[in-house]
Amino acid sequence: RRSHMTVSFTDPQVSMDLLRAVLQPSFNNDIMAVFKKYQMFFEKAAQNVKENIGEDVQTDQLVKDACRNVLEHAKQLFPEGEVKRVGPEIAVKRYKPIDEEYG
Amino acid sequence: RRSHMTVSFTDPQVSMDLLRAVLQPSFNNDIMAVFKKYQMFFEKAAQNVKENIGEDVQTDQLVKDACRNVLEHAKQLFPEGEVKRVGPEIAVKRYKPIDEEYG
Repeated sequence: RRSHMTVSFTDPQVSMDLLRAVLQPSFNNDIMAVFKKYQMFFEKAAQNVKENIGEDVQTDQLVKDACRNVLEHAKQLFPEGEVKRVGPEIAVKRYKPIDEEYG
Repeated sequence: RRSHMTVSFTDPQVSMDLLRAVLQPSFNNDIMAVFKKYQMFFEKAAQNVKENIGEDVQTDQLVKDACRNVLEHAKQLFPEGEVKRVGPEIAVKRYKPIDEEYG
């Protein structure tokens, strides 16, 4: 039994990710609650897109894509140390006009 | 002016991502509030890792890595349509033992 514990806690990433996995369902609930606040906006936008473009637009997939993108961009709240892989720093990104990402 | 609008709303992804970018700062605030609830757990775990492994462990980076992983896994709340790229379905993943991801 002892050696099994040692294995788990030798790799920092594994050790932290075990905790992450334990907390994930609770996180997911809280994150879903956050998304519910904004869901209407995304659904309206997706509906607009559908009206402008046509019937073959899957609004629910557009909304889900947008939600995944929100989560991806939220990672910039927790930037990596030396190696900055997320592009321009958040502070600047946040306060620039919204078309910043289409330049 | 009209044509500029047409450009923005022709590509569904761009159109949706404009809204995403507008809402992102607000999302980030809400998501940070969620993470604050769990921060102590991650910090304790990172401290344990440091005690077990050694001085060269950067606890704050371990915590940030874990937080980014939470966001990555939360994407499974919004699965892609036909093409499932996130691995096994969430319902199963959630209720299996926590070592499920290390097999």
